[in-house]
Order: sequence, then structure tokens, then C-alpha cells
Amino acid sequence: MLIFIGTGLWDAEDISLKGLRYARSSDEVYLELYTSKPNIDTDSLSELIGKEVGLLSRSDLEENSRYLVEKAKERDIVILVPGDPMVATTHTALRVEAKKRGVKTVIIHSSSILSAVCGITGLHIYKFGKSATISYPYREKVSKTPVDVIESNRKINAHTLLFLDLHPEPMKIDKAISLLEQVGNVSEYYGVGIARAGSENMVVKCDKLKNLKEFDFGDPMHILITLSPRIHFMEFEYLREFADAPDTLEKLVE
Amino acid sequence: MLIFIGTGLWDAEDISLKGLRYARSSDEVYLELYTSKPNIDTDSLSELIGKEVGLLSRSDLEENSRYLVEKAKERDIVILVPGDPMVATTHTALRVEAKKRGVKTVIIHSSSILSAVCGITGLHIYKFGKSATISYPYREKVSKTPVDVIESNRKINAHTLLFLDLHPEPMKIDKAISLLEQVGNVSEYYGVGIARAGSENMVVKCDKLKNLKEFDFGDPMHILITLSPRIHFMEFEYLREFADAPDTLEKLVE
Repeated sequence: MLIFIGTGLWDAEDISLKGLRYARSSDEVYLELYTSKPNIDTDSLSELIGKEVGLLSRSDLEENSRYLVEKAKERDIVILVPGDPMVATTHTALRVEAKKRGVKTVIIHSSSILSAVCGITGLHIYKFGKSATISYPYREKVSKTPVDVIESNRKINAHTLLFLDLHPEPMKIDKAISLLEQVGNVSEYYGVGIARAGSENMVVKCDKLKNLKEFDFGDPMHILITLSPRIHFMEFEYLREFADAPDTLEKLVE
Repeated sequence: MLIFIGTGLWDAEDISLKGLRYARSSDEVYLELYTSKPNIDTDSLSELIGKEVGLLSRSDLEENSRYLVEKAKERDIVILVPGDPMVATTHTALRVEAKKRGVKTVIIHSSSILSAVCGITGLHIYKFGKSATISYPYREKVSKTPVDVIESNRKINAHTLLFLDLHPEPMKIDKAISLLEQVGNVSEYYGVGIARAGSENMVVKCDKLKNLKEFDFGDPMHILITLSPRIHFMEFEYLREFADAPDTLEKLVE
């Protein structure tokens, strides 16, 4: 059996009781840190679970995934995934491969930035449009996709959740905004930057993108949301109380 | 202090280790079941946490919320919320009120259907547009909003996550589709129905909406997704393997 267990938003304590139970009763446990980089490592998880936790590389999950799947025919193999498993296509492909080879799979869900943004920012779930990732330039070319998504969301008065590239290193908000500015007129848009979501030293700050670019969010992981052109009064109030939003944001209230 | 703790997708074992630690060290613990109805109750949580868990009504959270907030000035009050807290505006309003009255708040996140749909259906996170709720008719009038959201998402080739009304009783998928059909030409659209997400007897089924309406999903909670007009090959493969999708779905692969 192949068991995907989410370790949740930030540290080892964000795993669920169910996840811990499955991990403890399994034969082998592995952690992958390719699709997310929270405050978690094999040592803290080994101590918690009471057995050695191996680290998987990208190739273990992708081109060499057959090895894991074959082992899972005989043994219960756990793959610990930061956040909620299967949000990354790397995991969905692995689950499909396992099914095709007759290996049973289980998913134990956990907290994810996808829902946590609602509590962190107070932005209404119905107001989010499509999400996008801001990637590092490829051959010096900056992708326009995130700006296209932001603009198409703004047309339907929707917020945009932007994931920041993790490789070769976790991107910070200032870099992300610089990249957006290279391909779109976004500086005057309001946004919310979030650093280290789910940790005790999380930082949440709402302002125009040009100001967020100058703001010191500290260490990764970072994530960025651009706001819809008009916002609900309750969204404004929440951002004022919990994201130090400037008074000028009130002009967006519909 | 007012502490919002997510209990996660389905049962008491979906709470995180961090959530359990906070609940055990608090002065009073309450559960609210107004915003979601998973397989959880005060008895199972009392046993887990080791102290009595009270049940909150809607009025405790809304018009009479001042009472809770005042108590939280002196004591550590935990509110257990199914799924991830703050996705419902009921909780965001309460957190703002607490902040205004000088009461510290903490959120402990947990698993939510918002991210779990990715693992359950294999649908790509970037492909989801705005979400909507299918409500029971109000004064015999069926809301057109969900159909409008579905149609505007289809224009940008996006999936639509549809929450089903909980009151006076959790709506089932057949009822939800009937309501959609009363205000839109949706019968031929493909969708995915999910029943009891995160449980051991979860049911996931992909088909045209007219066929999902006839499918027996069993007990609530139910949730419904309508697919974008074109889908990725990996989305098709996942739905074929894990949601018993019909062969005809392959026509949508782009």
C-alpha cells in the first residue's frame, strides 16, 4: 500500500492524529520536500513517528517512481508531503501509476495554504478566481501567465492567489512583484503578502504591490495575493485588523 | 484568548497534534456544527481532549457572540470548527470583534475540502475558477448565481467547486443538480460528485450531470464539481482510475 500523508502548513505538529497513526503503523516512511519547503525535516518527523524517515528526491518521485511503487506491493510505504498531498501533479501521477500496477493507495489530508489564506487574510472564499505560480525567468524570459490570470480575475472582481517558485530557492515577495512589474502594470494594485504561514512568526501585510515590494517579510516561505478591484466591507475590516492595511484600502469597498 | 481550531475533513482523528495540544491546555472548549456537518460530535471530542466540549448554536456565534468574546478576556476559550476555520464569514466576523475588544486570537488550521478536492479528483488546482454555493430555493425562487459562476468559469476553461446548502438539512447531489437544471442548460456538462470526503466510505463519481443526478451517493455530506469544457490528459486519467469516469470523457482532453 502507498500512503500519502499531509504534514500540514508549517511544522511536524501540523500532522493529523490520523496521519500519525498511519505513519507509525507503516513499514517505511519517506519525506519529500520538493513540492514545498515548510519548517520540517526528517529528524523531527523521525522522532515523532518513532522510526527512521528517509528523504525522497525529485527523481524518486518522478522518473524512478517505479521503485517506490514496486516496494508498495509488498509493504506499507508512507510518503509524507508538506501541506495537503496531491495539490502537486507529481503526486497525482504517482497515485495513478500505483493504481495501474495494482497497488492500493490512501490519502490522509492536512492543512494547506489553499484554505488557510481565508483565515489569514479574511478574504472570502467565493471571491478567489484562478490561481497561478510566479516562476523564475526561463532563459531570461519572464512568463506573462500570472499577469494574465490576475487581469482575467480582476474582470470578474476576483482575488488571485499566487504561489512563488521554489527552485532553485524559495522566491520572496519582492522578487515576485518585480517579475510581475516587468510584464504588467500591476504596481498600483492592492495585494496581501504572507510569510511563513501557520508559524508563530507569520507576517501578513496588505498594501499596494509597489509598497509590498519594499516591505521586509523576512525568511520564506512567501505567498502573494492580489486583490479584486472591489472588496467587501468585512474583507476590508479584517485586513485592517490583521494585515495592517492602509486606510486608503477603504476606497475599494463596494 | 480565543482559539479557533480546525477539526479537519471528517472525524475527530483529523485534528492536528497542534490543535489537540491547544484544546487540552485551554480552559473551555466548544464545538460549532453550523457551518459544516462532518462525522464529529461533542462526545468523541470530549473523550479525545479530556474535558467537556459544549455545543455552540448559530446565535452563540453571531448575535450573542459578545458573551464568548467577553469570557475570552479572562480565559482561554477554544472553538472547534469542522474543516479549516475562517472559511465561513461567521468566524471571520467573530475574530474581528475579538480583536476590537482587545482579545488575542489564534487559528490552528486543518484539512479542508478546498484542498482535498485536488487529491480526491486529480483536478489541477490552477484549473479551478470561482466557487459557489447551491442553496435551497428562497420563497420558491431558485438562485441563478451558481449557474452564472459555472458559465463564467467555463469561458476561461475553469472547473467550478460547488458547496451544497446545509440548512435545514444537508443537500444531496441529486437535489443540487435538479436546482441547477431549473435555471441553466447544464445537464450535458461533466461533473464529479463527492460524498463523505475524507471518510473510509467516501464515494467519488464522474459523469454527465444528468447521470450523476441518478447515481446513489448515499448519506451526506455531498459536494459537486462541474468540469471545464476541456481537461488535461492527466486529469482524465485520474478521473478514470479513481472516479469511474466514462470513456466518453476522453473527448474533453485537450
